[in-house]
Amino acid sequence: MRALLADIGGTNARFALLAEDRIGPPVILPVSRFPTPEAAMAAALERLAPGQMIDAAVLAVAGPVSGGTARLTNAPWRFEEAAIAAHFGVRRARLVNDFQALAHALPHLPPTDLVAIGAGVADPSAPMLVLGPGTGLGCAALVPTAAGPQVVPTEGGHIGLAPTDAVEDAVVAGLRARCGRAGAEEALSGRGIANLHAVVAALHGAAVPERDAAAVVGAAEECPVAAEAMRHFLMLLAGFAGDVALAWGARGGVFLAGGIMPRLAATLDRAAFRARFEDKAPMAGWMAGVPLAIVTHPAPAFPGLAAIAAAE
Amino acid sequence: MRALLADIGGTNARFALLAEDRIGPPVILPVSRFPTPEAAMAAALERLAPGQMIDAAVLAVAGPVSGGTARLTNAPWRFEEAAIAAHFGVRRARLVNDFQALAHALPHLPPTDLVAIGAGVADPSAPMLVLGPGTGLGCAALVPTAAGPQVVPTEGGHIGLAPTDAVEDAVVAGLRARCGRAGAEEALSGRGIANLHAVVAALHGAAVPERDAAAVVGAAEECPVAAEAMRHFLMLLAGFAGDVALAWGARGGVFLAGGIMPRLAATLDRAAFRARFEDKAPMAGWMAGVPLAIVTHPAPAFPGLAAIAAAE
Repeated sequence: MRALLADIGGTNARFALLAEDRIGPPVILPVSRFPTPEAAMAAALERLAPGQMIDAAVLAVAGPVSGGTARLTNAPWRFEEAAIAAHFGVRRARLVNDFQALAHALPHLPPTDLVAIGAGVADPSAPMLVLGPGTGLGCAALVPTAAGPQVVPTEGGHIGLAPTDAVEDAVVAGLRARCGRAGAEEALSGRGIANLHAVVAALHGAAVPERDAAAVVGAAEECPVAAEAMRHFLMLLAGFAGDVALAWGARGGVFLAGGIMPRLAATLDRAAFRARFEDKAPMAGWMAGVPLAIVTHPAPAFPGLAAIAAAE
Repeated sequence: MRALLADIGGTNARFALLAEDRIGPPVILPVSRFPTPEAAMAAALERLAPGQMIDAAVLAVAGPVSGGTARLTNAPWRFEEAAIAAHFGVRRARLVNDFQALAHALPHLPPTDLVAIGAGVADPSAPMLVLGPGTGLGCAALVPTAAGPQVVPTEGGHIGLAPTDAVEDAVVAGLRARCGRAGAEEALSGRGIANLHAVVAALHGAAVPERDAAAVVGAAEECPVAAEAMRHFLMLLAGFAGDVALAWGARGGVFLAGGIMPRLAATLDRAAFRARFEDKAPMAGWMAGVPLAIVTHPAPAFPGLAAIAAAE
């Protein structure tokens, strides 16, 4: 089977060819250069497999997928499975949400594509979770079943933030004042880092400019406000990851993907992050058994898309 | 097939006979009167099916089940599948956690055993959740799969409480001071109602005695502290139920079981409870579609145990 795999975000679309169960090298195309996904797919195929036919297309889209259709959250492309299949003469085109693709990938990621945070031993009969702080805060699960792995999309990125001390009480109250509601995504995303920076600045009455996430990360070495915002980001993320692990009984492991965590993996205080993840009395012993890792694979959706293609 | 079904709590054990796909009338025996579960099962069988053989036994236990063994959280009984099967000469004895049994029951509960809270239309392809404030705060899910419903036990009752305004900030801080950590169960259980009462009394400097859950419920009509504790219990429970619904993408529905909610069903302000359940901006529209109900079936584990027996 030869399938075109695509991982399509608001800015870039990544394509790769699945042939003989191997994923080939990727082609990356800017979404803004093509009027439709079909035009970009055709341009990618010209480079990946010139003059050759494919049997299937499996596309991960950073946006809601429903009834065989999808649209990007941040760009004008629209997707329809039937139209894509007809355009490329393939038996089947399949659209999935990007976090569903990441969840499908979890059993296929080798340890070399992960940075483990602490110990923990996976229970292969229990759910695995993938969380992704990036543009938003994605969350999907994979449940092992007698009929194979079942992926469940979730809206876990929107649960309420649970503060654990007086300083976090003030931060959460500040997020509520700034955003209307202190849902997890309001702190645990690119926008969330900017929100946390503004809230910390206000709490200290500090005369710092509003900064976007990249500027906060860049300033964290010299600016105490940026440093405190990043500390809150990481501790609230670790606490959130622990809460979602409890909510799912996710003894199969919790995996951090998305645009932000891989960049922070090298400098992360893993012991502090792990300690906060486990800080769930009276369940600290249970939490100690849950594997936790950052996904450093450069394109982790592709192994998931390949698994979907192989299962069809 | 004839199976003995049992729903075993710390105080009472309920037994019923499943024969020809029908669940017969229950026998209720006090746990303290029998040295072992086998002794109580034998006493129940003498009443339910004197002189007859059974083919299977399926037991729900209010405590952790692992590796075919279980023990009660609040009583000295120990359970072992192999020993029970040998004692009664049955092909198979099966132990499950009580919330797993409740999750198995969800598709089998008729509307007459539910009190709906608001509208919402179940998506049959999405997970269903059962939450149970009682001695603790149980939580289990049912995921539809190609191989049939898959039940997933969770530790969702231990996620952190997420306050939504300044008054709840103070209540959560008070719970933290009283309990060490403000996990959901510290507020959303029988013990939790007592905790909330003590925290509200301290916040107001009110000279009221420490009260257990039954006393708080009983005093709520005349005592403003008890009334405020019950309001916090219900609003925090509705917010928790909404958060767990998001964490699971539970468009199959959220069901409130356990010892406490059925007693409050008649007097509950359903509109206020539903409004708090849906108060998850920017997901309020998504939440509006999620069915929410109180389970009023007097022994809801039995339909789940029957489903487990039938599937084996």
